[in-house]
Amino acid sequence: MATTTLNKSNIFFEPDSFSNLNSYLKKNKFSKIFILVDNNTFADCYPILAESCPLLHTAEIIEVESGEQNKTLNTCSEIWEGLSEINADKNSLLINLGGGVITDLGGFIASIYKRGISFIHIPTTLLAMADASIGGKCGVDLGNIKNQLGTITQADAVFIYTPFLGTLDTRHLKNGMAEVVKMALIADKKLITDLHNGKKQLEEIITKSVALKTAIVKKDPFDKGIRKTLNFGHTIGHAIEGSLLATKNELLHGEAIAIGMIIESFIALDKKLISKSDLTIIINLIKPNYELLKFNKSQYKSILELIQHDKKNKNTIIRMSLLKGLGSCIFDQEVSLVQIEKAFVNYTTLIES
Amino acid sequence: MATTTLNKSNIFFEPDSFSNLNSYLKKNKFSKIFILVDNNTFADCYPILAESCPLLHTAEIIEVESGEQNKTLNTCSEIWEGLSEINADKNSLLINLGGGVITDLGGFIASIYKRGISFIHIPTTLLAMADASIGGKCGVDLGNIKNQLGTITQADAVFIYTPFLGTLDTRHLKNGMAEVVKMALIADKKLITDLHNGKKQLEEIITKSVALKTAIVKKDPFDKGIRKTLNFGHTIGHAIEGSLLATKNELLHGEAIAIGMIIESFIALDKKLISKSDLTIIINLIKPNYELLKFNKSQYKSILELIQHDKKNKNTIIRMSLLKGLGSCIFDQEVSLVQIEKAFVNYTTLIES
Repeated sequence: MATTTLNKSNIFFEPDSFSNLNSYLKKNKFSKIFILVDNNTFADCYPILAESCPLLHTAEIIEVESGEQNKTLNTCSEIWEGLSEINADKNSLLINLGGGVITDLGGFIASIYKRGISFIHIPTTLLAMADASIGGKCGVDLGNIKNQLGTITQADAVFIYTPFLGTLDTRHLKNGMAEVVKMALIADKKLITDLHNGKKQLEEIITKSVALKTAIVKKDPFDKGIRKTLNFGHTIGHAIEGSLLATKNELLHGEAIAIGMIIESFIALDKKLISKSDLTIIINLIKPNYELLKFNKSQYKSILELIQHDKKNKNTIIRMSLLKGLGSCIFDQEVSLVQIEKAFVNYTTLIES
Repeated sequence: MATTTLNKSNIFFEPDSFSNLNSYLKKNKFSKIFILVDNNTFADCYPILAESCPLLHTAEIIEVESGEQNKTLNTCSEIWEGLSEINADKNSLLINLGGGVITDLGGFIASIYKRGISFIHIPTTLLAMADASIGGKCGVDLGNIKNQLGTITQADAVFIYTPFLGTLDTRHLKNGMAEVVKMALIADKKLITDLHNGKKQLEEIITKSVALKTAIVKKDPFDKGIRKTLNFGHTIGHAIEGSLLATKNELLHGEAIAIGMIIESFIALDKKLISKSDLTIIINLIKPNYELLKFNKSQYKSILELIQHDKKNKNTIIRMSLLKGLGSCIFDQEVSLVQIEKAFVNYTTLIES
């Protein structure tokens, strides 16, 4: 499969990802190599990686506990101190082997340490392969505000090794698929049909999603304009995710975004940006695959509060990226609290129907 | 005086700095404005600024205690949490009103919050006007390793209001002058003579220093090549500064760099990069104005350790920027521990003579 170039970043696909990784490691003579893993990727993915890349046998492993609740400044701080203690220099490489939490966290750690060292992503989940590892956004949460601190720094390269998907359960596959659904809804009408028919293979879906995202990021790397369309479903989705973080109802990112996309589509309908039949197609694509949670009063209050922290807001006015028809999206759309509340009511009616 | 443009960054000088600041604030309709100060600049500079800029009357003040020991991740973390609590959005502006610690700290805080908000510098010390506020380097210390965490992010603009220098004592003026001496030694032989004669006015010196630094940063904004020459005196100077941080012998940045420049010049002599008469000129420029400390054994040990953490090092080899004649500098020069030890011996002989 071909190589996609995004600014200085190279994205490599199967069947050549590890041979490209070996060439990359040979070409760049890093003084030290570190691999950031979580407990799952250390057990399931690291052995495969190490076997395929002899140059990584002497790399140092940095292990963090899996899960969004560890995507914090505290985790970074501990790792920065660790890197300092063993005198990791500016010519070091950080390899991020994991899902979206690891690529977000590791990209941020590398982009700040000594004002920036090289890093590459080896995504191990569908979410990270199809979305999170692409485009340079990295960062950590602050309390329950998602990605409140971060930078936009492109990885040196991304190596997508799809056999890692074999280590995932259905829940985590669906988690990643939510971002693919988003990509289709905002940018590719034909992909909506393909996803609905369920005929495309995972590899094809990943390649398509990466191509769609890359095209958008190339046009607007620093998130000033069209890149904001990638945030469809995320104003409300992030707030849902944040409000349930570290509770017994905690959702995976994609699960929260799935709900966010439905509620934001109700808003788009209300603003006459999409038709009723568009909405039906969206709901039919999402509802059968995701658990649509009902929120209690205190959760709902916390969600509304978090929506007001969203990065796209300006002068306390809430702004969202909303679908305009299927396969198309517009950004910086002002949305009132009344419109949001109405959409939540419609969502509740939908899940109770 | 003219305006110097550095990438997207604009640098404004007297007598028009505050009128340019007012235009900037009017043009950009920021949703909220924050002013980062320390206890000194809040007392001495903020009242003058507020009087000249009515648009800043409603700005929120963020005050930190003055001094390098507060340039930490902890300080940032508290400020990030504070910004979050009052729901500062991505269209906020951070004004950094202070010396090098405030511009380093504030630039870093702004470059990370919500993946980057706008910030401007209003430097209040000679060091910040002539050097620290220019070029986009920002960051914090980690333990006693200087600027171990940071980014390179250009300020929207820098407003240099020289009357603030009236609030500085001689020690702080000399502190800033050390960076001007460095700029002359690495890039401008004529400026060496001018500084020696003591005829130039402070305003002229600042303008010259800013022009020299801007020219270098423009050629190499991301510190891959010639920008490293700005680090002359800093490999050893930063280590000295770090080793004395929070002790009773704590030095100001420029005071440490002054010593660093002398010791690194001994290394340049040893490597036959400068002549004995060059060295004499360098010593005569620095020795009368700075206290050349004698280090005890434990300080010396800590300095040598910190040198090995320098960002310019590669594969555990120590690399410095060294003068090559007067007014010229080369970078990535490998230096052995033996050469460093010899230079410290020569330095000790000098201060005891």
